[in-house]
Amino acid sequence: MRKQLQALRSAMAEHKLDAYLIPTDDFHGSEYVGEYFTCRKYVSGFTGSAGTLLVFPNWAGLWTDGRYFLQAEEQLKGSGIRLMKMGQPGVPTLEAFLRSSLQPEQVLGFDGRCVSAQAGRTYYQLTKSLGARINDQVDLVAEIWTDRPPLPAQPVWELALEYAGESRADKLARVRTVMAAEGADVFLLTSLEDIAWLLNVRGGDIACTPVVLAYLALTKDSCYLFANDAAFPQQVQEHLEDDGVFLRPYDGFYDYANRLSAGQKVLLSTSNVNTKLLTSIPTGVHIIDRPNPTEAMKGVKNSVEAANMAQAHLYDGIALTRFMYWLKKNVGKIPISELSAAEYLEELRKVQPGYLQPSFDPIVAFGPHAAMNHYSPTKESDVPVTQEGFLLADTGGHYLTGTTDCTRTYAVGPLTQEQKQQYTAVLQGNLNLAAITFSTGCSGANLDYAARRPLWDLGLDYNHGTGHGVGYLLSVHEGPQNIRWRISNGADVPMAPGMITSNEPGFYLDGSYGIRLENLELCVEKETTPYGTFLGFETLTLTPFDLDAVDPDQLSSREKALLNAYHARVREAIAPHLPPEEAAWLEEATRPLA
Amino acid sequence: MRKQLQALRSAMAEHKLDAYLIPTDDFHGSEYVGEYFTCRKYVSGFTGSAGTLLVFPNWAGLWTDGRYFLQAEEQLKGSGIRLMKMGQPGVPTLEAFLRSSLQPEQVLGFDGRCVSAQAGRTYYQLTKSLGARINDQVDLVAEIWTDRPPLPAQPVWELALEYAGESRADKLARVRTVMAAEGADVFLLTSLEDIAWLLNVRGGDIACTPVVLAYLALTKDSCYLFANDAAFPQQVQEHLEDDGVFLRPYDGFYDYANRLSAGQKVLLSTSNVNTKLLTSIPTGVHIIDRPNPTEAMKGVKNSVEAANMAQAHLYDGIALTRFMYWLKKNVGKIPISELSAAEYLEELRKVQPGYLQPSFDPIVAFGPHAAMNHYSPTKESDVPVTQEGFLLADTGGHYLTGTTDCTRTYAVGPLTQEQKQQYTAVLQGNLNLAAITFSTGCSGANLDYAARRPLWDLGLDYNHGTGHGVGYLLSVHEGPQNIRWRISNGADVPMAPGMITSNEPGFYLDGSYGIRLENLELCVEKETTPYGTFLGFETLTLTPFDLDAVDPDQLSSREKALLNAYHARVREAIAPHLPPEEAAWLEEATRPLA
Repeated sequence: MRKQLQALRSAMAEHKLDAYLIPTDDFHGSEYVGEYFTCRKYVSGFTGSAGTLLVFPNWAGLWTDGRYFLQAEEQLKGSGIRLMKMGQPGVPTLEAFLRSSLQPEQVLGFDGRCVSAQAGRTYYQLTKSLGARINDQVDLVAEIWTDRPPLPAQPVWELALEYAGESRADKLARVRTVMAAEGADVFLLTSLEDIAWLLNVRGGDIACTPVVLAYLALTKDSCYLFANDAAFPQQVQEHLEDDGVFLRPYDGFYDYANRLSAGQKVLLSTSNVNTKLLTSIPTGVHIIDRPNPTEAMKGVKNSVEAANMAQAHLYDGIALTRFMYWLKKNVGKIPISELSAAEYLEELRKVQPGYLQPSFDPIVAFGPHAAMNHYSPTKESDVPVTQEGFLLADTGGHYLTGTTDCTRTYAVGPLTQEQKQQYTAVLQGNLNLAAITFSTGCSGANLDYAARRPLWDLGLDYNHGTGHGVGYLLSVHEGPQNIRWRISNGADVPMAPGMITSNEPGFYLDGSYGIRLENLELCVEKETTPYGTFLGFETLTLTPFDLDAVDPDQLSSREKALLNAYHARVREAIAPHLPPEEAAWLEEATRPLA
Repeated sequence: MRKQLQALRSAMAEHKLDAYLIPTDDFHGSEYVGEYFTCRKYVSGFTGSAGTLLVFPNWAGLWTDGRYFLQAEEQLKGSGIRLMKMGQPGVPTLEAFLRSSLQPEQVLGFDGRCVSAQAGRTYYQLTKSLGARINDQVDLVAEIWTDRPPLPAQPVWELALEYAGESRADKLARVRTVMAAEGADVFLLTSLEDIAWLLNVRGGDIACTPVVLAYLALTKDSCYLFANDAAFPQQVQEHLEDDGVFLRPYDGFYDYANRLSAGQKVLLSTSNVNTKLLTSIPTGVHIIDRPNPTEAMKGVKNSVEAANMAQAHLYDGIALTRFMYWLKKNVGKIPISELSAAEYLEELRKVQPGYLQPSFDPIVAFGPHAAMNHYSPTKESDVPVTQEGFLLADTGGHYLTGTTDCTRTYAVGPLTQEQKQQYTAVLQGNLNLAAITFSTGCSGANLDYAARRPLWDLGLDYNHGTGHGVGYLLSVHEGPQNIRWRISNGADVPMAPGMITSNEPGFYLDGSYGIRLENLELCVEKETTPYGTFLGFETLTLTPFDLDAVDPDQLSSREKALLNAYHARVREAIAPHLPPEEAAWLEEATRPLA
């Protein structure tokens, strides 16, 4: 049994807790979390990005989803923790398990800062109906994790107006206008990306997401930023104060919430905040439960952000195109592995102007690895890239001028006709979605078909969404919109000019290979006629598709024209930035198909 | 002032009502209503299919929507009733108007059988907040409408198993299984189409919708049909009783509901029932508010129904094709008007096996009439059809073997290149939607784009849904599914094999002409692969598109192949049933495009 689990049980006994729950979230519901927050990993040893650990004195189980069954099985071996495969027949949900295991008068403990308000409500109702109780004020892992890293406090810096395109003061005024319209006295914001966007600040508190660990409370005439002031250089503090934003201690946020007065109207999004915040707010305070207004605002890029994003994609395109040249020229001739290829691409990005860091862990996946969800090469998993089939590279960078996210799948060896058919179908989907014209008001659920049609027509499919929103030097995944056919969580949010969304159809053959082609698309107004205002996309990403994998006969004449036009754009934009030999190669790599 | 309005006000005074509300609905929320139920038309003179009349002692107003502004303005002239144009700036909603006009202690009256449960809830909350009251037990129009037609009681007949495909007993058993799963003791059903479907009975109580005026109450071991027994031949009554279905007086339904006991669990759909039913149910009865299970069941046609529907469409296709031959040959040579054309088509349908009646009022619209919503020719509106532009015919029939609904737009004179471009775009939309392949789970909101793409690409659009469900010898419009891009009311219901949905893109130029092409599509399973089960459509409608209006150069090679394949199907199916001259013409009318 893991000693961390033993230690946790001792702490449970001390605190008189009969069950203890450790989710994966940080205090802000972030998609990625800092090391400080990896309590579930610390206790269980399971490193996946989703899962909840439930510990009783005599039993412990970890609930996680299908993406992680194999990995969790491996990592939980000998830990004394049972793997609970979510969604499998006969496996109770965590809620059902608690309902049948927790006894009256028993106490369930957790750190309410790491549990979403929605999950919290479920646990409260459940324990209430059982006659059990909850203690949501205990971070037991803090007591047993002796070498726990400190809360991150990386230096905060300001994003200049030439990058942000809208001043902090103007953004605050816009949010206050929404608050007034909603009749809200206070707006409580805990989403790190939204806070960074609103205040035009960036930090380094989460890997690949340059945000600052903070909470924010905004009223008509005050704005408090609850954060570690050691992370804020004097000048940044002064600039914030000039705009009426004052620092307060990070953990003072809950006291602030607790001191709100009955009758006050508080705007917050219960889908985003944690349960401790909600339970800290006194009864009598009126909660206006709406999506954070900042989410919709930051989702629509202003003209400066959009122009910068195009610039970032030119630089990124140079790196990606040079990578493709290097890969196609050298595979089979010099040793290349997934990791070394990822490192080489990172070197090419690093020399681009304004490049800061990867926007996510690079996925460079050879053969069967590319058919696995969420594969990123590690020293343990790394394999040589040989002259066979496909290499898939899904990578991205943060630049001062924005954020990129691009997937290309390269033919590194001979392909079968079937593989070419599948690659070409994925390409058709990408081209057709990029060229779409649609009525104002349409959402991703209406558009998804454009990307899937070529695959569905062949009886093929991919088991993930077609597109996600992308932040500006923030998270590479952001809402509110997305492109998915299942109507839920964002697929019903209308597309709006200025939104940036990925376009990434794919195809995966388990155990063999994976194909995915991803560009970022800027939503633009195409035309206004007596019949409506029509929107469409402008493709930001600039690097070739691999013509070695394309079956030209499968493309309609329209699709050929779309591909040729895209390749002409890539050639014209990228070639001037390449050494002559690479430019000559690009000419050939982007040749028009007849 | 209309004397009916004066009479109503006298009745209001007698009953001590300060306001009286007359909606358009019958007691069953039917899309079309019988003459007996046309109280709003009787009092106001306005004949449109949507609108609510509100009468005060000194003021009366009629709320209706944009489709009817012109017509209502005309029909309300001199009536003493103000037209309230819904959705226009400065026009209060009926609810807002009531809120500002009704005084404390005043009484608002209406017949609760004609007000939906949802609207009823709004009125109750509104009057309660004002300190006013409601009397929902008064049908004042019954007192003043001296020559009111009687409640319809057309002879009821049974739909034989060879047409229905599933026995009444089996259907009742299926519904009882759902009731058991929902834990319901009683299921109260008021939707006329659902009752007719469930009991395999048909009648003639509503124009174009062969249903029987009735309510139904189903328990585990009883089934009461509340209806006028004079409409039920002895044999039908006996057959119903054999299956445990017993007749009760039509208006005894509310007493039945009123005698339910506290603790009983009643399944009903508050989106479908009227407010009187809901208020008749004693407090303490637990209401399980779910869509009527019969709606989903009747939406999925069984294999007998599907095969019959194909048969009905063959017969209907013969009539439609002969109509097209007659029209194209004779226009400009013999006098043809919208009405005479509609009558001629009806004659052609009447001679088809199993034909019963039109499934809706025929829309035969020439020139500008085709650009109007809901236009049906009348003696007053009828115009000659001359050799200019387009004639649009949207018509359908009820057969023992099912229900048809087809729109064709015919070139009756020379067309401009622009008109051909628009017709061809509509045709492309129809062909692409018909040929779609999609993943199980997709709904109409995911598919709508396939039909609109060719129009949106040209900056064109049509201001209506792409498709509605179609009943089997019931209403030509039925749920639960539809095809619309706006995600609401059915556009999010997954398509399922056996559903029949219309495919009717269009284009309309106000004041000039309209184009619409409509086929009915049967949802079928196309293939199951390792990547999923894929669905698609089989087109039921069999009559040519008008090649005189098609620009072949606008069609992709795939679209040409789809059109040619469809026309080959039409030719092979229909030609054997035509006189030689017409068969020769059909050969030419369905010639393959190169």
